[in-house]
Amino acid sequence: MLRKILIANRGEIAVRIIRACAEMGIRSVAIYSEADRFALHVKKADESYCIGSEPVAGYLNVYGLVNLAAATGCDAIHPGYGFLSENAQFAKACADRGLIFIGPAAEVIERMGDKTEARKAMIAAGLPVTPGSAGNLDTVDEALEVAEAIGYPVMLKATSGGGGRGIRRCDSAEELRRNYDRVISEAGKAFGRAEVFLEKCIVNPRHIEVQVLADQHGNTIHLYERDCSIQRRNQKLIEIAPSPQLGEAQRQYIGGLAVLAAKAVGYTNAGTVEFLLDDQDRFYFMEMNTRVQVEHTITETITGVDIVEEQIRVAAGLPLRFRQEEIRRRGYAIQFRVNAEDPQNNFLPSFGRISRYYAPGGPGVRTDTAIYTGYEIPPFYDSMLAKVIVSALSWEDAIKRGERALRDMGLFGIKTTIPYYLEILRHPEFRSGQFDTGFVEKHPELIHYSHKPRPEVLASVIAAAMAAHTGL
Amino acid sequence: MLRKILIANRGEIAVRIIRACAEMGIRSVAIYSEADRFALHVKKADESYCIGSEPVAGYLNVYGLVNLAAATGCDAIHPGYGFLSENAQFAKACADRGLIFIGPAAEVIERMGDKTEARKAMIAAGLPVTPGSAGNLDTVDEALEVAEAIGYPVMLKATSGGGGRGIRRCDSAEELRRNYDRVISEAGKAFGRAEVFLEKCIVNPRHIEVQVLADQHGNTIHLYERDCSIQRRNQKLIEIAPSPQLGEAQRQYIGGLAVLAAKAVGYTNAGTVEFLLDDQDRFYFMEMNTRVQVEHTITETITGVDIVEEQIRVAAGLPLRFRQEEIRRRGYAIQFRVNAEDPQNNFLPSFGRISRYYAPGGPGVRTDTAIYTGYEIPPFYDSMLAKVIVSALSWEDAIKRGERALRDMGLFGIKTTIPYYLEILRHPEFRSGQFDTGFVEKHPELIHYSHKPRPEVLASVIAAAMAAHTGL
Repeated sequence: MLRKILIANRGEIAVRIIRACAEMGIRSVAIYSEADRFALHVKKADESYCIGSEPVAGYLNVYGLVNLAAATGCDAIHPGYGFLSENAQFAKACADRGLIFIGPAAEVIERMGDKTEARKAMIAAGLPVTPGSAGNLDTVDEALEVAEAIGYPVMLKATSGGGGRGIRRCDSAEELRRNYDRVISEAGKAFGRAEVFLEKCIVNPRHIEVQVLADQHGNTIHLYERDCSIQRRNQKLIEIAPSPQLGEAQRQYIGGLAVLAAKAVGYTNAGTVEFLLDDQDRFYFMEMNTRVQVEHTITETITGVDIVEEQIRVAAGLPLRFRQEEIRRRGYAIQFRVNAEDPQNNFLPSFGRISRYYAPGGPGVRTDTAIYTGYEIPPFYDSMLAKVIVSALSWEDAIKRGERALRDMGLFGIKTTIPYYLEILRHPEFRSGQFDTGFVEKHPELIHYSHKPRPEVLASVIAAAMAAHTGL
Repeated sequence: MLRKILIANRGEIAVRIIRACAEMGIRSVAIYSEADRFALHVKKADESYCIGSEPVAGYLNVYGLVNLAAATGCDAIHPGYGFLSENAQFAKACADRGLIFIGPAAEVIERMGDKTEARKAMIAAGLPVTPGSAGNLDTVDEALEVAEAIGYPVMLKATSGGGGRGIRRCDSAEELRRNYDRVISEAGKAFGRAEVFLEKCIVNPRHIEVQVLADQHGNTIHLYERDCSIQRRNQKLIEIAPSPQLGEAQRQYIGGLAVLAAKAVGYTNAGTVEFLLDDQDRFYFMEMNTRVQVEHTITETITGVDIVEEQIRVAAGLPLRFRQEEIRRRGYAIQFRVNAEDPQNNFLPSFGRISRYYAPGGPGVRTDTAIYTGYEIPPFYDSMLAKVIVSALSWEDAIKRGERALRDMGLFGIKTTIPYYLEILRHPEFRSGQFDTGFVEKHPELIHYSHKPRPEVLASVIAAAMAAHTGL
């Protein structure tokens, strides 16, 4: 088993990995920028090292982190999500230094990170993919030709993009022409590779993804699916496991497809195969994420499997602890990404000091966060403050628990997406369990919630005052 | 369905019930003594009423609470545990006033609260009971005679006692003679009935209890058992579900016994049938608790069933939502009662202000508490501050998670039982899953833990300082 792991990340996912290490008896090493010196992951790790005054650069410094891991006697690095988690060069640098990278092999990361290569691999494995260009596009004329053949709207995508970034929808030849150079330029800046490809745009699909686990002994299983259709501008807001939109046959079908996909590329460790589901109930492979996802929590909740622990065990060369038939689901889990954003002000990030925080509690509630009372949110990182995960035996009860848990949470001093989520939870379309990725855009009225105290709160104050006088 | 419930309790169980109400769309009414005016249940309820300056009297004021419930338009009262929860007069006063008491019928509370009556009912139902007096004892001579017949040691018990109070072990005739008047006198003072009976003392048994649920339509099910053998002076400290000491056949056997017991007395709502298990693997009925237990949480965790919600539904006349065969268990859950006590100072209560609190988080952790940063613990109530509930698919993983979660919890300003629990978790006997109610007494060395910082914490501080200087 591993003895000491450097966690090349920050925030709630760093805390999540530290917790797994603590449970496994593995020492954890945290890293932090100067801006992060009061961060919770720094306090919770067994050791912590400052990686410089630049807020972001240190977290992306491939050789700096590999050297630090070696210097501090680590035998492995866990990249979390974001930052270097899907950077093949980082995985390779670890291997070169004799360190275990907790994720798939560098070649697999590289191949699945190249969206046109991934498409080709999936076509070869027999997975359904959306119609699109055979590979990268060389010219705008080629793009126009392909688009004409498959029909508008189309999605122009950065070959090295992913996670919802580097994507642009084009509804006409004119729009495609206009966007072509822009997306190429963005791709070069954001991902270091000025390459794009094109796919048929599935309008307002459902986003269904399957969690897979694979060890180094040829065992590959899936942990069922997550429904991440509630998104805003390709960023997931609320995730659900299992999808309330799938029947059991569909569930088994995409679970099988995901395992097929993982096996086809020699995948090891935890990964996610993302699918789009169109309004004719057809699945299309979208992309594979070669890391732990933000929303792995809901899969843990419904299956009881600790995905981060399995990641570490698999990286250490141990076999998976579960066979496919041993994976059982229970009920529904919903995750809310509580972001420091003001929904009523175009989701503007709301940084500052958290004057008071308390976690929701009670049955069926899990919280993953790195915030605490008095924590000053640095403005350099993403706006997700906490993940609130609720679960219950039925979809209806999970919704009720979600409402309760979000109200139960105390988070003062900043604006958050909580009141917006409460509106979503009350919406009949959401409650029916039938919604697609267009939900947020289709319901702009949901941001018009009121901040006024609920009438019963006022009533309670008045009643208490009266009771105090009458000595009830 | 009910519309509004008065919660005749305080602390974490009041918060627990408020949460159930919130999820069910039922308005909650909290009560509070002046000492409790800053308590969390007061903030969380939809309405709150002060019930006087006496810290305890108001919570025990049968007619005061019934009148308040009626005056505030409640249709039901939830008594929680402790206080009036097993007071048949309270249940009757509710019924007389047209209020639903969320618990079994007054007659059933009365019958099961009378330990000699309960014994008789259980014998009639065919349950195994320990050898003992046929009913209440009239004289010390009768006690001596019964004790002689069944053999020492014996337990002298208050007929109206329960929950570990009003019990005294006697190892000889001399001891029995000495204790007899004392227990009678205590019983009179503590429970209002100066009656005692006598049972064979099962030395260091295992404490195994079964959760039952029964509706008003004749459906009675069990939710499997809890192992509450880790006790100190008859007070439970750590509870486990299911018991790691039982085989599946034993589990089914006592589950069936508990349902039999509940049906025999016409039980409705949630209840617990407590058994002792001796070193020959024989079960004996001990008592039935006619209320929700502190440790209901671990049963919720392994089954997914919300027991408080079921209590409310059943009280409203609805049928149970589950048949016996639909109740599935998953993994193990352990509850730690985090008490404001100093284990190294004879578990002396440690009251005062909680200077800082944060809940443990991450996978498989639930916290039920009414404390918060800045909360001043009133010295008038029991010392339990929080319940930390952990779960995992295996017993071994649940233990590791327990250690992690207890370390994860931040609770400053007072002494707690957490460091003592960490010692218990490390003990081979506990880890083996084979222990009895003598565990705490047999291992007095476990309170000799050290408060010194762990070496790695020091190392981390030094390393961080060095890194800051070398600019690593």
